[in-house]
Amino acid sequence: MKLVTYRASVEAEARLGALVDGLVVDLARFGAAAGVVLPSTMLEFIDLGPQAVTQTSAMLDQADGSFPLGSAVPLANVKLLAPIPRPRKNIFGIGLNYTEHVAESAKSLDTSAELPRQPVIFSKPPTSVIGPDDAIVHDAEITQQLDWEVELAAIIGTRAKRVSREEALNYVFGYTVCIDMSARDCRRAGQWIYSKGQDTYCPMGPVVVTADEIPDPQTLDLWLTVNGTEKQRSNTAFMLFKVDELVADISKGITLEPGDIIATGTPAGVGAGRDPQEWVWPGDVIVATVAGIGTLRHPVVAA
Amino acid sequence: MKLVTYRASVEAEARLGALVDGLVVDLARFGAAAGVVLPSTMLEFIDLGPQAVTQTSAMLDQADGSFPLGSAVPLANVKLLAPIPRPRKNIFGIGLNYTEHVAESAKSLDTSAELPRQPVIFSKPPTSVIGPDDAIVHDAEITQQLDWEVELAAIIGTRAKRVSREEALNYVFGYTVCIDMSARDCRRAGQWIYSKGQDTYCPMGPVVVTADEIPDPQTLDLWLTVNGTEKQRSNTAFMLFKVDELVADISKGITLEPGDIIATGTPAGVGAGRDPQEWVWPGDVIVATVAGIGTLRHPVVAA
Repeated sequence: MKLVTYRASVEAEARLGALVDGLVVDLARFGAAAGVVLPSTMLEFIDLGPQAVTQTSAMLDQADGSFPLGSAVPLANVKLLAPIPRPRKNIFGIGLNYTEHVAESAKSLDTSAELPRQPVIFSKPPTSVIGPDDAIVHDAEITQQLDWEVELAAIIGTRAKRVSREEALNYVFGYTVCIDMSARDCRRAGQWIYSKGQDTYCPMGPVVVTADEIPDPQTLDLWLTVNGTEKQRSNTAFMLFKVDELVADISKGITLEPGDIIATGTPAGVGAGRDPQEWVWPGDVIVATVAGIGTLRHPVVAA
Repeated sequence: MKLVTYRASVEAEARLGALVDGLVVDLARFGAAAGVVLPSTMLEFIDLGPQAVTQTSAMLDQADGSFPLGSAVPLANVKLLAPIPRPRKNIFGIGLNYTEHVAESAKSLDTSAELPRQPVIFSKPPTSVIGPDDAIVHDAEITQQLDWEVELAAIIGTRAKRVSREEALNYVFGYTVCIDMSARDCRRAGQWIYSKGQDTYCPMGPVVVTADEIPDPQTLDLWLTVNGTEKQRSNTAFMLFKVDELVADISKGITLEPGDIIATGTPAGVGAGRDPQEWVWPGDVIVATVAGIGTLRHPVVAA
């Protein structure tokens, strides 16, 4: 399934939907028409566990494109929000997780040229999350070095503490796209949260693809353009620490919970790593894609 | 007011209470008896804003120690929980915020000897929070360098974005005590979340003292003992960045929300800064106090 959080109109509440052939199917209403109770938010749906994915997916297949009146609207008519507009804890970010990005960072930032031996973890607060097409705010009083990072994000489906690498992918609900906006001049004594955690610095979406449709998350092309010019292109095959290792590693010490998000790191091609360095400014447009999931498009605006 | 989150018995739900002369007054029940709707959780009470503090405090004063049957129980009979058992985002931690701690860290850890020019921010996930007397888990597979840090924690009361230093304390709901447990050998490429954010690494409580009772948070003695031996003693007067500066600084880029917690940094005397270095181990007991707020007591246990 491809799941979205959306508003059917400007004044409508945020709802959980499934994308089916250009339609957004309101899962709660679709379920109600079939006598099944389905939730109206992504987090509540994730809480139901993997069996709910299988069963809901089967019900949608059975409907065969014919949905009860009022339960489906054209995708073109809705406003998509971040799939999880308000995560329950900070998003886990992974730094320095693609070889060439480690190299470019060591040249231009303050990080080591050596490959990290363990995942480098930081966080982005829930207040940093924005949805598709929302504006990324550039506050010139705070930063003159606002940078882009396209990433695959994994969403946890089942509570995980000390899970093995072998089991780890069973704990993943699905995947989405994330842009890990980074104000390079807002690092503080090496800590990244202020550079990566400001309001609007975590565009996410446009959809969550459930894990059953991405059995191997290490095969996905991802790329990013600024004003139409390609800046990043790679494949998740080149991650240093794969999704299963990240889940296993974090869960050793920190309980992962349903709806937790892990932004898995960015490949080479960020602005800080270019010669001369490049940054985004109000008026720029960032477009980020992970193949098989979708594309985020975000204007940068002045504060 | 001194506010607590507590269970009246092992199987009881967590409730919001006010401490009055050795009694825990259940605010929702106390309010109901007076025909006033008061919430049953700390976060909901914080959401009501500062006027609710003034009004509730006045009602408690008027009661003059006489509370309706069933609305007050002896403190000795309840189990205190962390005041906010489940924060809405990661706790903001401030590193290197006392001069002598900057010096000891530069000697023993990987930080600079220079005083930071801006607050050094990191985060601890909600899953790291434990309440008074709860065990701190020492996982010998992950760390051999588990360290203590006593801190004053400020709790935000009102949504804050780009507030001035002069106004900043108006946005603070109250204060509590926090121990910023830190596994020094779990730092990753300089990032601290994994060293400071593991499950049980954020003991908090025992009470929240509302801001009206602490007009100047920069006057509080704080100290910490391990197995009865004093390891840290200082005063919040020696913070490099005061509470008002921290609120103003963070809110420049990151919206602070009601219930958000800022752990304001620790003074000198941590285990990493000692010669020879000292760490805590299963069987040890850490006791941390901020004068005028209260004392936390936590056993360290093996995973």
